[in-house]
Amino acid sequence: MAETAADHRFDVIAIGNAIVDVMAPATDDEIARLGLAKGGMTLVDADRAAALYAAMGPAREISGGSAANTLAGLAALGASCAFIGQVADDQFGRVFAHDIRAGKIAFDTAARAGDPPTAQCLIFVTPDGQRTMNTFLGASQFLPAAALDETLIAASRVLYLEGYLWDPEEPRAAMRKAIAAARAAGTQVAFTLSDAFVISRHGDDFRALIADGMIDILFANEHELAALTGKADFHDGMAALSNVPTLVVTRGELGAHARHGTDEAHVPAQPIAKVVDTTGAGDLFAAGFLHGHVRGLSLSESLTLGAICAAEVISHYGARPEADLKALTGLA
Amino acid sequence: MAETAADHRFDVIAIGNAIVDVMAPATDDEIARLGLAKGGMTLVDADRAAALYAAMGPAREISGGSAANTLAGLAALGASCAFIGQVADDQFGRVFAHDIRAGKIAFDTAARAGDPPTAQCLIFVTPDGQRTMNTFLGASQFLPAAALDETLIAASRVLYLEGYLWDPEEPRAAMRKAIAAARAAGTQVAFTLSDAFVISRHGDDFRALIADGMIDILFANEHELAALTGKADFHDGMAALSNVPTLVVTRGELGAHARHGTDEAHVPAQPIAKVVDTTGAGDLFAAGFLHGHVRGLSLSESLTLGAICAAEVISHYGARPEADLKALTGLA
Repeated sequence: MAETAADHRFDVIAIGNAIVDVMAPATDDEIARLGLAKGGMTLVDADRAAALYAAMGPAREISGGSAANTLAGLAALGASCAFIGQVADDQFGRVFAHDIRAGKIAFDTAARAGDPPTAQCLIFVTPDGQRTMNTFLGASQFLPAAALDETLIAASRVLYLEGYLWDPEEPRAAMRKAIAAARAAGTQVAFTLSDAFVISRHGDDFRALIADGMIDILFANEHELAALTGKADFHDGMAALSNVPTLVVTRGELGAHARHGTDEAHVPAQPIAKVVDTTGAGDLFAAGFLHGHVRGLSLSESLTLGAICAAEVISHYGARPEADLKALTGLA
Repeated sequence: MAETAADHRFDVIAIGNAIVDVMAPATDDEIARLGLAKGGMTLVDADRAAALYAAMGPAREISGGSAANTLAGLAALGASCAFIGQVADDQFGRVFAHDIRAGKIAFDTAARAGDPPTAQCLIFVTPDGQRTMNTFLGASQFLPAAALDETLIAASRVLYLEGYLWDPEEPRAAMRKAIAAARAAGTQVAFTLSDAFVISRHGDDFRALIADGMIDILFANEHELAALTGKADFHDGMAALSNVPTLVVTRGELGAHARHGTDEAHVPAQPIAKVVDTTGAGDLFAAGFLHGHVRGLSLSESLTLGAICAAEVISHYGARPEADLKALTGLA
């Protein structure tokens, strides 16, 4: 599956939201009382974010952002990575930049002066480990196309794009430009659908990108697959996306499926002692799979890497890996 | 041990550093290479803090501060608490204020405009669970005496003071004023020595406060006790402080000793599966002990509460309790 060119500076370059997660435990009653959609991701404005934060228990702050989490996993597995995303010139922006660079991921997008502040995601984690996310996009939604370094995209094996970021206008334009740069350079384009709400707003864009052959690798969970294809059954949904060269569909505790050309593979979910916090499960699954992909491993091996990385991240608070992923996956 | 007045608004009011902890795993080699004194607390300036942060791995941010951690434990046990401490008007300041208020602790000290930023403690946690702290005091060292509400101190059973805060000039003046207000109102004064370096700089002040009968309850670990008294043996050290009405000395895995009048008690350390991060161990020991003290429990029962709370906080990252302390201690 992997390309063989030896002169790629990065295995994966990603464009995504630059977010600091603010996480706290919550009860199901609190989720209901706050009017939150349990398990989902909701965009909130500054006022709603302030009200939700005031209602939240004592929290902790850990860098997040879907594509950034995926890169953190990839880098921990030994891949060379770069990130493009917009922070503000504030303390949370410095936290995000520190954490991603400390994970040995190249990150050169200049911080944006003035308001709004760096994006924050207020995450309520219920005792079942389920996370309910409320994202204030802040500076993240102002990522300008000018922030792209097309030579870096051309110097990468894979360009990884986060569906969440398709919603705000400026980053969407930046991602369209990035896709064009990738295709011109022979860089593979990987895309994660992120959330059903993104598909409800931009499904036509995604279907057009797929129809035009712009997406080489597509990540979806079964709900997103159904929303995109209109097929309730996930096998039917996968069949409807036959022109996506590499398709990866995660199904939570039911495991994950992948198809590449005529190859198909399935992997069960890894057993874990206790689901503490599901934040980042899909992001880390993508990390493991992509690492296998760029290393030329089989579909099945790549899925297994994804399942191991997802299991690690849901066993603790926060969406960035804590354990030694190289050791966990046998890549050490 | 407890007073019986029914009109106390707060069980404990504390004055301490208002700090956000920035915590990351580190190896012993990294500790050595960075020239850090393993297990200790070192004050650093902004430049050294920036250099250490740049050298730190991906981190997480969790509110800290010694006395604030103690209050978080007390409030989790069901005590009514208030905090006085100085944050800046910045994102970390809002994080600190949120977390302490979300823990149901009254906190009304106005944020300080302009530089320096809110205090940060860069904490490197080695695989043995030991923490090595580097504190940039920032706004915290500018707590003015004017920030004290003496009516709140008079309305509290116990005034708890953090030795760390004796070092900077303005908070030291504020604490002297607070001690005077407490003594005038019949509020007990509790003091934690915090660290041997504080004693090396201010031991004469502390010895004078004790000689003058200003301290009702003194918390020390065995190293601080030795530094304060000049006695290598901790029994000799405790004997040298015979005019402290209630003395509590912690000895890490050897447990803790307390003396109140002619009563003496000892409690072993609670067994725990794995020491993850010792940050906050002393702070949470003080929380448990003080809770027993204000509830009128025996010395031995108060020590046991301290040991249970300390064991909880060293079993996870961060210096604030995560588990249900009421349930753990049987107070639920």
